[in-house]
Amino acid sequence: MGIRIREVDAGFSLESILQRAKQDLNDTLSLVRPILEEVRTRGDEAVRDFTLKFDKLEPSSFYHPVPDWKGTADPELVAALEKAKENISIFHKAQMPSDLDVQVSGNSLGIRYTPIESVTVYAPGGKALYPSTILMGVIPAKIAGVKHIQIVTPPQKEGIPDGLFAAAKIAGADAIVTAGGAQGIAAASYGTKSIPRSEFVIGPGNKFVTAAKILLSGQGVIGIDSPAGPSEVLVIADDSANPNWVAADLLSQAEHGEDSAAILCTDSMGFAKKVAAEIDLALKERPKRADIKKASIENESWILVFPNLDSCVDFSNLYAPEHLEIQTKNYKELFRKIKHAGSVFLGPYSPVAMGDYISGTNHILPTAGGSRIFSSLGVMTFLKRVTYQEVTRDSLEKLYPYVKVLSEFEGLDEEHGNSVKVRLPKREV
Amino acid sequence: MGIRIREVDAGFSLESILQRAKQDLNDTLSLVRPILEEVRTRGDEAVRDFTLKFDKLEPSSFYHPVPDWKGTADPELVAALEKAKENISIFHKAQMPSDLDVQVSGNSLGIRYTPIESVTVYAPGGKALYPSTILMGVIPAKIAGVKHIQIVTPPQKEGIPDGLFAAAKIAGADAIVTAGGAQGIAAASYGTKSIPRSEFVIGPGNKFVTAAKILLSGQGVIGIDSPAGPSEVLVIADDSANPNWVAADLLSQAEHGEDSAAILCTDSMGFAKKVAAEIDLALKERPKRADIKKASIENESWILVFPNLDSCVDFSNLYAPEHLEIQTKNYKELFRKIKHAGSVFLGPYSPVAMGDYISGTNHILPTAGGSRIFSSLGVMTFLKRVTYQEVTRDSLEKLYPYVKVLSEFEGLDEEHGNSVKVRLPKREV
Repeated sequence: MGIRIREVDAGFSLESILQRAKQDLNDTLSLVRPILEEVRTRGDEAVRDFTLKFDKLEPSSFYHPVPDWKGTADPELVAALEKAKENISIFHKAQMPSDLDVQVSGNSLGIRYTPIESVTVYAPGGKALYPSTILMGVIPAKIAGVKHIQIVTPPQKEGIPDGLFAAAKIAGADAIVTAGGAQGIAAASYGTKSIPRSEFVIGPGNKFVTAAKILLSGQGVIGIDSPAGPSEVLVIADDSANPNWVAADLLSQAEHGEDSAAILCTDSMGFAKKVAAEIDLALKERPKRADIKKASIENESWILVFPNLDSCVDFSNLYAPEHLEIQTKNYKELFRKIKHAGSVFLGPYSPVAMGDYISGTNHILPTAGGSRIFSSLGVMTFLKRVTYQEVTRDSLEKLYPYVKVLSEFEGLDEEHGNSVKVRLPKREV
Repeated sequence: MGIRIREVDAGFSLESILQRAKQDLNDTLSLVRPILEEVRTRGDEAVRDFTLKFDKLEPSSFYHPVPDWKGTADPELVAALEKAKENISIFHKAQMPSDLDVQVSGNSLGIRYTPIESVTVYAPGGKALYPSTILMGVIPAKIAGVKHIQIVTPPQKEGIPDGLFAAAKIAGADAIVTAGGAQGIAAASYGTKSIPRSEFVIGPGNKFVTAAKILLSGQGVIGIDSPAGPSEVLVIADDSANPNWVAADLLSQAEHGEDSAAILCTDSMGFAKKVAAEIDLALKERPKRADIKKASIENESWILVFPNLDSCVDFSNLYAPEHLEIQTKNYKELFRKIKHAGSVFLGPYSPVAMGDYISGTNHILPTAGGSRIFSSLGVMTFLKRVTYQEVTRDSLEKLYPYVKVLSEFEGLDEEHGNSVKVRLPKREV
């Protein structure tokens, strides 16, 4: 049993593939609510209690300023993180928006972009602790001008790994906070004696982290990024693509987790079969994380054979993949028809792993179809628009009649209308 | 009893003014959850049941295409709405972002902006039905390129007012959906037989509307705008300002609702007293909505006298007002120090009412300090960033060593690393 191949015809419903598993958080929300309340009222003490309960650890402190780090990391790792930082920085600095100033009806109207002041980047612990994700979360915030950036992550028995500190330092984070799960999110959102409050909390986590973020943002305590689900790739390829490379890309997605989805859309059954054969071969030849890769490939992944490439694009726009690869002869032309995707990888030499690590694009992306309405993480995630206007006396007078009509219609003429009228030059009666 | 005046000194805590009342939605969330579930499973039938229960009405249909409207509206109102549309359109068209393409390490990286496809603008009913808010919600979505825009609003005994239809038509909305409260939001979010699903839902509403939006966005069903609370203005003024005009602006805010807050920050006790006297006088001379205005002025509003204007700015940045007026001699200089505000009104001739109706800026703004992390509504609200990269073979080879190190450190070398390595030219061993 390998990856499923299916010719897409009238008899085959794509609905179940489009409807990716949504986490049911109802039970988790009930579990998390009291944790948030405890941390809000009892602060560090509650964080300590929950850390002992859930992590079986008693850290002597939670807040670790990055500049205080005295360790060393592997020079090769540092060099790679530095190179990644360089590319991420170039791409994200180019995203800095210009302020806007425009004349409308004789008045100056405009937009000034200002940064959020404090941000928490949540980083899962254990095997899922990825230095690359630290760079992706922290560097755009730093470029946007966020004043205080802390990484919140579960404590580990051996202390904070040097690789994490190195990534935090290179990215420019201010501190690492060793408090995980809902209690970590709550501490960073409410603030405690030892942990500063952040106004905005980003980054993926387990369902307790997600539930805490949803509850706290729903209550207006923090802002959050778009919800994160299992990772996924959709590859559009025709028979000009290399089946071995496409198979490698699908498996690279499968490597993430049992719930990862890898979807190939193609117009060629012959190509589909070649890719499936390459996957079978690779699963035998590269046995690391075999159970994870097999589960993802066999249960979550598909090769879909469409009548033509335009149908592949139509499906992709409905699926709105986190990662989209286009490996076709006419990949530039197809890309122009793409409406919804997190990060797009164009042509034969752009595997997703390049964006995961080094190309410079961000790898924190909307999943589960979220790219139909949400953006990938970027500098704009940490900026907001302050709009302004300076109205002239002349324009005030010319526009007053419209304000009068509108405010009367809405029953707000006595004060709204008056606040304009009172400024107008008195006329002789 | 009028507005409270307070000299801000070491003995006075501003905390209670900063901490605006947050709606406690816990009970409402429990009430709303089954309504959402009913609408999800029973569709139109459930909407009909809840409309009968809550609105005491039995509409024959919910979905009213705007082009089908055969009524007429007051020509003066139409002219005012057209003028407002003109100014809103100029300012919001200027916000359309340019796509980005940048070379990084020899590769093409970029961003393409694409619109959300379907949007619901919720509009409260009854007295709070504001045609101006229809323009503010719909026009930016239209400019962004949203394909289907519907206005969802509670049904009214007399049917849909012509003023609402006129605003919807001028703004460019596709339809008016007469279903209010949680059932209206649920119908627009899940879709029913007669009501199309929207992927993004914006606009203010009562606590049932807010709770429904929070629950549905938490479950990943829809995206929503930032949560809306009571409206508020903060005015920074020195004694160069006209106390009569400043009083008019504070009262214009008070006119919105009993829970509206109007805050004047000044460096002059003399000016403070003049404004307070003008407010007292106005409350006598302009008796319309007197109870509402008095409640807002006496219970929610303040005149705060700071030692200097810079302290006023510092407080304003903490308060992060929805509306900010700066009426001082040096208003341009002070504005440069403003970090957080929804919409800013500069100089003596820029009362908030100008932005509410006609200047061209948006009046759907973050409240309750939300402007510390959220933006005013704009074209960007309805656009998202699709990032992309096209990697060259040469760059792939040069960057591979970094991918190797990083993927090995993260335990993802077998597939992530391999997907890059497999593309490299074979070397002789």
